[in-house]
Amino acid sequence: MTNQKQDSEPSVPKAVVSRLSLYLRELQQLLRVGRKTISSSKLGSRLGVTDTQVRKDFAYFGQFGYPGIGYRCEELVGEIRQILGTDHTWPAALIGCGNLGQALLGYRGFSRQGFQVKLAFDISPELVGQSFEGLVVDHLDRMPELVRENEIRLAILAVPAKAANEAVERLIEAGITGILNFAPVTLTLPQSVSVVGVDLAMELEQLAFAVVQQTNSSK
Amino acid sequence: MTNQKQDSEPSVPKAVVSRLSLYLRELQQLLRVGRKTISSSKLGSRLGVTDTQVRKDFAYFGQFGYPGIGYRCEELVGEIRQILGTDHTWPAALIGCGNLGQALLGYRGFSRQGFQVKLAFDISPELVGQSFEGLVVDHLDRMPELVRENEIRLAILAVPAKAANEAVERLIEAGITGILNFAPVTLTLPQSVSVVGVDLAMELEQLAFAVVQQTNSSK
Repeated sequence: MTNQKQDSEPSVPKAVVSRLSLYLRELQQLLRVGRKTISSSKLGSRLGVTDTQVRKDFAYFGQFGYPGIGYRCEELVGEIRQILGTDHTWPAALIGCGNLGQALLGYRGFSRQGFQVKLAFDISPELVGQSFEGLVVDHLDRMPELVRENEIRLAILAVPAKAANEAVERLIEAGITGILNFAPVTLTLPQSVSVVGVDLAMELEQLAFAVVQQTNSSK
Repeated sequence: MTNQKQDSEPSVPKAVVSRLSLYLRELQQLLRVGRKTISSSKLGSRLGVTDTQVRKDFAYFGQFGYPGIGYRCEELVGEIRQILGTDHTWPAALIGCGNLGQALLGYRGFSRQGFQVKLAFDISPELVGQSFEGLVVDHLDRMPELVRENEIRLAILAVPAKAANEAVERLIEAGITGILNFAPVTLTLPQSVSVVGVDLAMELEQLAFAVVQQTNSSK
C-alpha cells in the first residue's frame, strides 16, 4: 500500500494506521476461536512486533488495556473500528467493471469489513446495463448524479491507466473524497482528496523475501 | 497484507520488510525524476517515518548511507532488490483464471518488480486452452509436471474459497514454497511454505481513516 499524497505530514504515522488493520484482523480471528482477552505481548508476537510497540501504537488513540488482563478482544475490535471509521458501513462506488472490477465486486472481504459497493460504472456499451453480483452497471456519465444522491464519498478505481486521470477529475467534481486506486498510475490530486494506491507487487516482494529467508535457514 | 504463518518469530520484523518495499517504490520514483541521492530524513518524510527509523530499518541488512551525501538512489535500489530477492526475475504460476486471475495476468506491476507469470492453470473446460495476455491456460492436473519443469517456486492463488485448500495441497506436492493468497480463507501450511494473504479491505480501511482525518481537520 502506498499513500500517494506526500505533501502533508500526517499526525499519526501511516505505519501505525496499517498496524491497526493488522491488529483488527488478529482480534477478529481470536474472537472467532472464542478468545476473550489477549496481552500486548501475545498480540504483538502474532504480528512480529514488541509489546512496547503495541502499547505505543494504541497510545495514539487512548488507553485500551486493563492491568493484569490485557486487552478485551471484543472491546478493542470496537475501538479500532471506531478509530478507522469502519464502525459504520461506507457505501462506495466502483469505477471500471472489466475483469478487475468484476473480481472486486465478488470480493467478500469488503463487506465483511464495513464497505458496501452500491454503484458500479463503466463506459463500455458491452458492460453498461449488465448485472454483476446483483448490481447493474451504470454509464459513467450518470456517476455525479448517482454519487450525490447516494451520498457516496469513497470510490474504487479499477480502470485502465490511460482512463484514470479523466475518471478522477469527474470523481472529484462529484464530491468523492477518498479513492482506492488500482490503476497503475500515480494520481495528482487536491489536498482535500485522499488516495490509497494498491500495489499488488509489494505483497509478492514480501513473499519473495520470506521464501529466500526460509531457503537460507534450511541450508 | 497479513502473513498467515504465525508459529515462528522472524528475525527481521515484518513491518521492516514492508517498509523496504515502500522505500524501493520511493527510490524508483526518485530515479524516474532524475534524483541521484536522498537523505534519510527526506526519504523518511515521504513515508511518514523518522530518519532514525529509516537508518534502523536498513541497519538490519548493512550500512548503505554515505556521510554528507545520504543514500545513492540507484545503489540503494539495487541493495533493496537484493535483500528482497527481486534482483532476479521470479517465475510464478497463477492458479485460477476467473475474473481475478485474468485481471492479475494483465497487471503490469508484477513484471515491473521482477515477477513473471509463466504458467496459468484452471479446471474449467471453458478456460483451459484459452489464451490471456499471451499465456495459454493449462489444466490444473498438468500443474505438478509443468511447475517442476519450469523450476517455479511461487504461486499466485486466485481460486474461490472452497477450492483453495485442495489447490494448496497440490501446490505443495509440486514443490511450491511461496503462495500469494487472494482466496478469502486462512491456509494451513507446513513451516517450509510461506504465505502472504492479500487483504484488499485493509487498503480501504486505511483510506477510510484518511478521509475521516481529512474531514475532521477541515471542520
